[in-house]
Amino acid sequence: MNILIVHCHPEPRSFNAALTDIAMASLTQEGHEVHVSDLYAEGFDPVERASHFNSRADPEYFSALTEQRHHVQSDTLPSDVQREIDRLRQADLVILQFPLWWHAQPAMLKGWFDRVFVYGGLYSGTYRYDRGPLKGKRAICSVTTGAPASTFSPGGRSGDIATLMWPILCSLYYVGFDVLPPHITYGVQGGGLSYQDELAFHDHLEQAKHQWETRLRHWQTEKAIPFTGWQDWDEQGQTVDAHPLRWRT
Amino acid sequence: MNILIVHCHPEPRSFNAALTDIAMASLTQEGHEVHVSDLYAEGFDPVERASHFNSRADPEYFSALTEQRHHVQSDTLPSDVQREIDRLRQADLVILQFPLWWHAQPAMLKGWFDRVFVYGGLYSGTYRYDRGPLKGKRAICSVTTGAPASTFSPGGRSGDIATLMWPILCSLYYVGFDVLPPHITYGVQGGGLSYQDELAFHDHLEQAKHQWETRLRHWQTEKAIPFTGWQDWDEQGQTVDAHPLRWRT
Repeated sequence: MNILIVHCHPEPRSFNAALTDIAMASLTQEGHEVHVSDLYAEGFDPVERASHFNSRADPEYFSALTEQRHHVQSDTLPSDVQREIDRLRQADLVILQFPLWWHAQPAMLKGWFDRVFVYGGLYSGTYRYDRGPLKGKRAICSVTTGAPASTFSPGGRSGDIATLMWPILCSLYYVGFDVLPPHITYGVQGGGLSYQDELAFHDHLEQAKHQWETRLRHWQTEKAIPFTGWQDWDEQGQTVDAHPLRWRT
Repeated sequence: MNILIVHCHPEPRSFNAALTDIAMASLTQEGHEVHVSDLYAEGFDPVERASHFNSRADPEYFSALTEQRHHVQSDTLPSDVQREIDRLRQADLVILQFPLWWHAQPAMLKGWFDRVFVYGGLYSGTYRYDRGPLKGKRAICSVTTGAPASTFSPGGRSGDIATLMWPILCSLYYVGFDVLPPHITYGVQGGGLSYQDELAFHDHLEQAKHQWETRLRHWQTEKAIPFTGWQDWDEQGQTVDAHPLRWRT
């Protein structure tokens, strides 16, 4: 199968980089073809703005959606966006590897959604959610947090991890992915803040790599998060019972 | 009083720009001193990365938190970050004006959090949440959405707006803000996708401006969102009842 890892971390020797490396190694060993979009290394520009688009559909007023749709139709999307879309269309599984910064993905990865998930290409008013163009593909987030697991419980100091992840999971579902429950590695410290000693860092990293590698063995059969879909919604876009199914840790 | 509007939209004639303009005009008329951080116009770089920092604390391994703390202590933060921090420290009220893109703030504004809310400056392990350095200041998000209000209900197709806003509200609370319930303007279409006619656009805009201007009259007295705080958490960072107070529409 074809697997895309969208890797988002500024430090090549980071905990996140090690998790991407182990995923690449173990999935390759299982016979899959693995590609990596290393957003920092490739210098991806995460800011959606007018200057990305040549020959504007509307030179007077910049609407991201108007330009995205126009440049999809004329096959003139920015080359970095087109490259990411090509990688997505080839992939059977997409892995997003990133640290949780300010209760969400880093700006670099947020802008990957803003720019790559183009209107008229990866979704439209009709083709989205369970009718999204990427239907049949699977996606999983592998996320590191600085704070420990206990603080991310419902009522926890860091915020309920299920709530914090929900906007990202919804965005993946929106374009059609079967979204697997995220894989969270808690309590990962940056360089200087760090562990009591090198050994503690090494132990945590080895444990995290093992857990991630083990988890990934089941990506083809694991049950996806049960989102509501078109058959559940009335004309106002509301579900009857008003209690959406939700991923829980 | 001193008010900072952090404005995030790429189009100067956008609905968002009109909301920033009416806020600036009405708050100025009431005698307040209003400043605007226009992130797109100022060319803010939202990507936290090594190249922002001179004379690195750790030239071998880039940790954003390590460098932020070091450059706070040596008073050598990047000039754009220092400028935003100075504006925040002067402000009694901070308004974030932005469109909801992919269930969150645009990358441009996400990176404003990533880069400006510096470790060792706007928070530390001890000074955060209700002990955060910006304690006593108020913050409010003014957000536009493309989809209509009904789809953002609990169980709604677009996702529960309270859940989608939660990561952003938590980030504001984290540095000490009293966070007011967000002001949401639903059903705002971009340029070309747009309204049935110019008149419909104009009517919606005038209504939205009036609602925002009216809302802002009470910013000094409005009740802030009741977050849990240090006195509610045990040593594991969990609240006893495990049911955090939450903003509801």
